[in-house]
Amino acid sequence: MRLMSLLVCSLIASATLPAIAADEKVDLALVNKIRDEGTNRSKIMETLSVLTDEIGPRLTGAPGLRKAGDWTKSQLASWGLQNAQTVSIAPFGRSWELEKSSMRMVAPSTLELVAIPKAWTPGTDGVKRGKVVYAKLETEEDLAKWKGKLKGVILLRDPAAATKLHTTPDAKRYTDDELHELENMELGAATGRPPMDMADIAKRLAFAKKINPYLTEEGVIATVNASRGEDGTIFVQGGGSYKAGEPTGPAALVMTAEHYNRVFRLIEKKKDVEVEVEVAVKFGDEDPANSLNVFAEIPGTDKKDEIVMLGGHLDSWHAGTGATDNAAGVAVAMEAVRMLKAIGFKPRRTIRIALWGGEEQGLLGSRDFISKNVAARPESTDPKEKDLPSFMRRPTGPLALKPLHGKISAYFNLDNGGGKIRGIYAENNAAAKAIFDAWLAPFHDLGAKTSTMKKTGSTDHVSFDAVGVPGFQFIQEPMDYFTRTHHTNIDVFDKIQKGDMMQAAMIMASFVAHTANRDEMFPRKPMAPEPAAR
Amino acid sequence: MRLMSLLVCSLIASATLPAIAADEKVDLALVNKIRDEGTNRSKIMETLSVLTDEIGPRLTGAPGLRKAGDWTKSQLASWGLQNAQTVSIAPFGRSWELEKSSMRMVAPSTLELVAIPKAWTPGTDGVKRGKVVYAKLETEEDLAKWKGKLKGVILLRDPAAATKLHTTPDAKRYTDDELHELENMELGAATGRPPMDMADIAKRLAFAKKINPYLTEEGVIATVNASRGEDGTIFVQGGGSYKAGEPTGPAALVMTAEHYNRVFRLIEKKKDVEVEVEVAVKFGDEDPANSLNVFAEIPGTDKKDEIVMLGGHLDSWHAGTGATDNAAGVAVAMEAVRMLKAIGFKPRRTIRIALWGGEEQGLLGSRDFISKNVAARPESTDPKEKDLPSFMRRPTGPLALKPLHGKISAYFNLDNGGGKIRGIYAENNAAAKAIFDAWLAPFHDLGAKTSTMKKTGSTDHVSFDAVGVPGFQFIQEPMDYFTRTHHTNIDVFDKIQKGDMMQAAMIMASFVAHTANRDEMFPRKPMAPEPAAR
Repeated sequence: MRLMSLLVCSLIASATLPAIAADEKVDLALVNKIRDEGTNRSKIMETLSVLTDEIGPRLTGAPGLRKAGDWTKSQLASWGLQNAQTVSIAPFGRSWELEKSSMRMVAPSTLELVAIPKAWTPGTDGVKRGKVVYAKLETEEDLAKWKGKLKGVILLRDPAAATKLHTTPDAKRYTDDELHELENMELGAATGRPPMDMADIAKRLAFAKKINPYLTEEGVIATVNASRGEDGTIFVQGGGSYKAGEPTGPAALVMTAEHYNRVFRLIEKKKDVEVEVEVAVKFGDEDPANSLNVFAEIPGTDKKDEIVMLGGHLDSWHAGTGATDNAAGVAVAMEAVRMLKAIGFKPRRTIRIALWGGEEQGLLGSRDFISKNVAARPESTDPKEKDLPSFMRRPTGPLALKPLHGKISAYFNLDNGGGKIRGIYAENNAAAKAIFDAWLAPFHDLGAKTSTMKKTGSTDHVSFDAVGVPGFQFIQEPMDYFTRTHHTNIDVFDKIQKGDMMQAAMIMASFVAHTANRDEMFPRKPMAPEPAAR
Repeated sequence: MRLMSLLVCSLIASATLPAIAADEKVDLALVNKIRDEGTNRSKIMETLSVLTDEIGPRLTGAPGLRKAGDWTKSQLASWGLQNAQTVSIAPFGRSWELEKSSMRMVAPSTLELVAIPKAWTPGTDGVKRGKVVYAKLETEEDLAKWKGKLKGVILLRDPAAATKLHTTPDAKRYTDDELHELENMELGAATGRPPMDMADIAKRLAFAKKINPYLTEEGVIATVNASRGEDGTIFVQGGGSYKAGEPTGPAALVMTAEHYNRVFRLIEKKKDVEVEVEVAVKFGDEDPANSLNVFAEIPGTDKKDEIVMLGGHLDSWHAGTGATDNAAGVAVAMEAVRMLKAIGFKPRRTIRIALWGGEEQGLLGSRDFISKNVAARPESTDPKEKDLPSFMRRPTGPLALKPLHGKISAYFNLDNGGGKIRGIYAENNAAAKAIFDAWLAPFHDLGAKTSTMKKTGSTDHVSFDAVGVPGFQFIQEPMDYFTRTHHTNIDVFDKIQKGDMMQAAMIMASFVAHTANRDEMFPRKPMAPEPAAR
């Protein structure tokens, strides 16, 4: 078999030479054009600046995401893409926007506290001042113990945060040794990021549903969690609930670690600490136009009913401007198709860019696309299952394939920050790995030479992989993604490196173009066995 | 001469062995007691927590400094020190406290801007909202060009800040190579930190005096500078003026770099950017009790009229809690004398701890002490000279020595952050260097082994050195002092490392005790020639 021979060739070569799959075609003339366009006429930083500086945060369900959808759609159309459209992924939930937030310690001395509210938590209805109390609220007994004692307080929800002396750099690039390690599989070991602890999440969700009404009823002014971010950086996501009618609890903020710790230590010393807080938010009813995916196409020629897809997610968290998470991926995918149009590339298969909404709430946009067009399982009728976030629900029956299942050749995703591409995760697809090795060859000089059989998780390619359609995520430089920008108030334009983005767009463009023009569809791995129902 | 022989001995030994001055006495029994007390019964982090967490910022002229003065005085007395007292260094200027500060972009989208007002700038008189304008205001022509165009605006004063990918660690410790380099002098080269550009400072001060009334008259709501701090960190000092009657201009804030840059880029793109700002401050008339030095003594025995001094500065900037700058130095000096009392040390000379006020405004506290007690030059009567900050004024006549000039054996200062001591600057005093080499020997295992002939500047030992009294500053680990904490909103307790502080206090205690018990006064270097008058 051709694919087997590619694999063998790759395996033999990999010890000493870059693994080139000898019979996988690489169109170096095409690569030349892409590298020329991407080097000399790049528009990627302009795209990024509009998404981040101008449009700002793009929280799913809120007007910022609609604005981003409208702009990206029209921008893609202006570059000559066809069928540019937004597609609602509603029902999602309430619209939420942060209008104002400030918090300061006013006694025993003043400190402007760097703190930001969690999404979907309410405002304080003006400036409120309260005594600060720390209460561990993790069990029913805790709730009983504190009953009647929390009226008008600012409630610390965490013990002191662990802070450290930063003797390692915030930002790093992969070393050759680290990339080499990434290439090697250890069977039986966990691959990619550790899986989420579903039981723990379910338990927290269940307790959160109890605790929010409790806190409201007790008259707590606001709650504060300690961020693992230091130096004024805050990692903050959602709280309360985006589902209409669900209790949100009081205003809930997250604070940079050292400031939190100062307040916490004073409480521990039995000092009277007072904090003034003002949070204003805008909750709105669901507007289906605020939760969406964006699509646009470069139509194919002789194989135009087959599709190669690429994308990133358009939605972001609210505290920064979602620059590395994931305006970067959106801009890279947009620049890739812009370049392919600009160089006059005529794909055999149709190229479809997808900019997803709702990724941060559980890959909602890509799952919506997959379930409507590619493959789906029956909806659960069990109320307990429906209560869980969609990504946690157990399968309810066999996968029903839909028309596009056999037509999507592959999907390429970029969602690991603002660093350049160092390679790609082949998701346990040996045939894919061999092809990638060939396609990476003309980008070795730009630092991209690693393919790994490993799987990686946590973003939209997973939705494709889960139904047996080849979906891939690139390996990117770690940079300061998990130390400074991922879901933080500092995830803004300055955290993006121009050269890295230019490189990523070229590689994305080349991978997509080569997938579009292969003689055959992209090879698939065996479907995963049907998981057991609950 | 004994001192010469010490020096020769030191020079011969220094190439291969730790330089031990063979005939400089080191009391290892005393060192043992200090190390035992400092290791097993340290109180330094408790002292630091009171200074930072409880008392908070200690801006000169403001109640925080008085509070710190009262507490340190009574704490030193409670440890058995004598003559604990605060001494006013008034006239200083107005009292200023930050009560409230928040700033957010409200259009084209919302971003909570991490920004803090400069000290001695006014509030905004409630919440104000204005269009953001960038104007370069550096010359008279600039002022004329913008006249009438700045009413009700939020004014950006800087171009975009340079931000970078943080591929080097924020915090570092000295390597052996770096310490070795620090040991070597290059004659003719600048030593220590580069000197301040006095002409530039004078020019800025002169223009600032023009610009503040201009900005007020034009009706600017607030000005914003870009901080060199990133990730939510802000470096911020003073603005306006602490001198009663001088114009302050409007509210003046400093913003973390990436947030500033987002606003700046939008302006460059001709977007309408609106910012909402609220700053409330408390200006007060001068209260002499708010600008002070603190002193306390362990009286000497047979040489009690001679004095060895140690200290750090008690005042701080306002945005954080002045933890590394310089609660660290204060706590180290306090812990040093606490330990000497606790172990029952009976000094021959009197040990006097000094905690200075007004250091940040030009070593005001130590200069006040020196000019009143040690040596002084006549006050200038030239109004142009009086207009300059005191540290910039040219000498007006010969130095007149006062009673303590011949009585202060040496002064030891610690004011380079929260890191441990790696050695000491000998300030071009070869005799001192040889003695220090001997005294450092029992602390080599704790990382302190470097003495250098180099001078260092920018803190209170300079006031002593300037009049010919031996004044020294220790070499400390760089840590994240100049990257994260020095004059920032993140200069708080968590940035201090306990083990480092314990070590520094032991070495400070040992140096002071050995200075107190030497047979002779500490050797002096030749007096600097009288500088030319202007």
